[in-house]
Amino acid sequence: MSDVGGPDPLDRPEPDPLVLPMRCEQTRDYPVVISNGLPDPKAITPGAPVDRRALVVTTPTVDRLHGDGFRRWVSSTGMDAVVDVRPLTEHRKTMEEALAISAVAQEHGLGRRDVMIAFGGGVCSDVVSVAASLTRRGIAHITVPTTLVGQVDAGIGLKGGVNFGGRKNYLGCFSPPEIALIDPAYLRTLPERELRCGMAEIVKMALVRDRAFFDLLRNEGSNLITSSFQEPPELARWVIARAAELMLEELGPNTYEDRTLQRLVDFGHTFSSSLEEVSSYRLRHGEAVAVDMALSCELAVGLNILDAETCGAVLDTLELFGLPVSSPFTTIDAAERGLEVTVAHRGGDLNLVVPSALGKGTFVVDRDDVTPELLERSIERLRARSERLVVSPGVDRP
Amino acid sequence: MSDVGGPDPLDRPEPDPLVLPMRCEQTRDYPVVISNGLPDPKAITPGAPVDRRALVVTTPTVDRLHGDGFRRWVSSTGMDAVVDVRPLTEHRKTMEEALAISAVAQEHGLGRRDVMIAFGGGVCSDVVSVAASLTRRGIAHITVPTTLVGQVDAGIGLKGGVNFGGRKNYLGCFSPPEIALIDPAYLRTLPERELRCGMAEIVKMALVRDRAFFDLLRNEGSNLITSSFQEPPELARWVIARAAELMLEELGPNTYEDRTLQRLVDFGHTFSSSLEEVSSYRLRHGEAVAVDMALSCELAVGLNILDAETCGAVLDTLELFGLPVSSPFTTIDAAERGLEVTVAHRGGDLNLVVPSALGKGTFVVDRDDVTPELLERSIERLRARSERLVVSPGVDRP
Repeated sequence: MSDVGGPDPLDRPEPDPLVLPMRCEQTRDYPVVISNGLPDPKAITPGAPVDRRALVVTTPTVDRLHGDGFRRWVSSTGMDAVVDVRPLTEHRKTMEEALAISAVAQEHGLGRRDVMIAFGGGVCSDVVSVAASLTRRGIAHITVPTTLVGQVDAGIGLKGGVNFGGRKNYLGCFSPPEIALIDPAYLRTLPERELRCGMAEIVKMALVRDRAFFDLLRNEGSNLITSSFQEPPELARWVIARAAELMLEELGPNTYEDRTLQRLVDFGHTFSSSLEEVSSYRLRHGEAVAVDMALSCELAVGLNILDAETCGAVLDTLELFGLPVSSPFTTIDAAERGLEVTVAHRGGDLNLVVPSALGKGTFVVDRDDVTPELLERSIERLRARSERLVVSPGVDRP
Repeated sequence: MSDVGGPDPLDRPEPDPLVLPMRCEQTRDYPVVISNGLPDPKAITPGAPVDRRALVVTTPTVDRLHGDGFRRWVSSTGMDAVVDVRPLTEHRKTMEEALAISAVAQEHGLGRRDVMIAFGGGVCSDVVSVAASLTRRGIAHITVPTTLVGQVDAGIGLKGGVNFGGRKNYLGCFSPPEIALIDPAYLRTLPERELRCGMAEIVKMALVRDRAFFDLLRNEGSNLITSSFQEPPELARWVIARAAELMLEELGPNTYEDRTLQRLVDFGHTFSSSLEEVSSYRLRHGEAVAVDMALSCELAVGLNILDAETCGAVLDTLELFGLPVSSPFTTIDAAERGLEVTVAHRGGDLNLVVPSALGKGTFVVDRDDVTPELLERSIERLRARSERLVVSPGVDRP
């Protein structure tokens, strides 16, 4: 740089203002590894340091069901680990929990090349990502998701988040894991409601990206849920892998969301946060995503983007998987708030993701296209449809 | 990606484990702009959105001295701004303050393309960086440093940090500003002690990078401090620009500190954090850096890396600028703790930065090279030297 340098500054005049350019470049690679049984991370990422310390963060339920085996596995990798068991629920997805994890890291002397391991569901990996990204300005973290949502969505991406001031994921980070380890065997103990929630995220990817995958889900999805994604094992593993792959493909060109605010993976994620917030998280994330996808499809029909028959097929499929297409929390107010928050979040445009056909997605860019009348009519149609059905047993009424 | 795709998963066997690769790439450019009077950021970064909202964070002192003019400037840029005045001192460089700033951002509805502005010293920009990087997973921030330390160091890099669990900057982020705006006129009101602290960071860069710059400082530094970096204006501006430029050049190839843990900018930053901590921040950062540089030079003499005469010249220069070369807090325990923390932070090696000549730096890689005897002897020599001098009036005894 020759703008400033040189021994005698007073010999030559300088421009005003004087501009020094700075470039910050970063490339981080990580593998998502799907396997029967967990592999040694060193086999996958041979660069990992030896004599590494690990802080495993998990929840009481996961620890009770899988903690012993997981401790043996961590031990077998040669890492010197401590385990921090804490009840991480959507209500405790807070900065206080993330800071408590950082305090444990500090207490156990985790160095800059040591690692946190999130062993649990999406809340666990979200909070651990935030803690790891803040600790010493960022230490590594490994995710080992134990829920279906975690294995195809929350646990394989690079976003961490905590709720703040009544707003879901208002604070967070982009922090790629060092590795994500997916073992479908953990799903064996997952409650059916959680399996359905995971299926909502799988349907999300299929519906905007891959018609053949969507068709396969229609045929096989119910059996997969019934078997807790254990039978047939090859199919279960393939469905998880395909959903994960589609997710990563969509994230890849725009990992830090700084290139475009039009993201197909936002399908089902326009109204869902508001719905979760007004339900005080009685509506689970996957259920809110299902309701959001159903509403987005109805809106797409109203805007002549999607034909009614295809919309019906989507709604049938969601219901087939025991997912709600409406909820007591789906009010005009909640939906309008969802639109408003989304416009702020997506930089002034709505960018509502809607399918234009099975396996193909597009964007409703302009918020004004979603008129109050269209919104009300769409919500009403879904409510009427829902009332013909038995209310999904997992969803509490307010 | 063809690992998973294809319509019928059962037709072909898959590898176990199945590995999906993910790459996260990010490039962020920002300018450091040094000028007389603040320019409109739009003139420098024309991509900034129109109708932007801004949250200005400043301290009571800076607000009292420069707030009116700054508000007029913000207003002239067309941004719709709110001002959050909070007493950000080293003691309040905490996550609580960062979260309070995020809460103000939430309350004022800052969207993803809006901006926080840190108008103050290094603590202000450190805390605002953390708040901005967390809010909505990262909104932009602009730094307008009003101290010399801020203008040549803390306010122009990409690191944010807060103190946690008694440890300086234990939590933080790498978060490039959108732009850093440097106006030397703000230094007019800076206390002399603060000017000396800034000079410590300037000496740091000169000593390991640019002998001619170091010589110029020896000749002109005292006058610059006496004139609050106002006279002669061209020289003052050039010294700030050169120090900033050297800093950015050193940061550039390793902005996220993921390529090497050997960083020349860490000169003076091995023992300094420990000294600040044990002094309960009565020792200012720049003073601790001066003490650290002096100790590092003495150690380098003991290790035959630096000749005693050059070391003497460095110590003379620090003292000429009213900076301490020792302090009541420089004990063997504090120094050993500094080494220990540094080894953890620099991934297992010490990487102590020492000058090998004026304008040239090198690294003491192995922690064992710094024996207790060498450390004690070096501390003792500096203490003896200090006791011959009047104790710097700004430094309290414990």
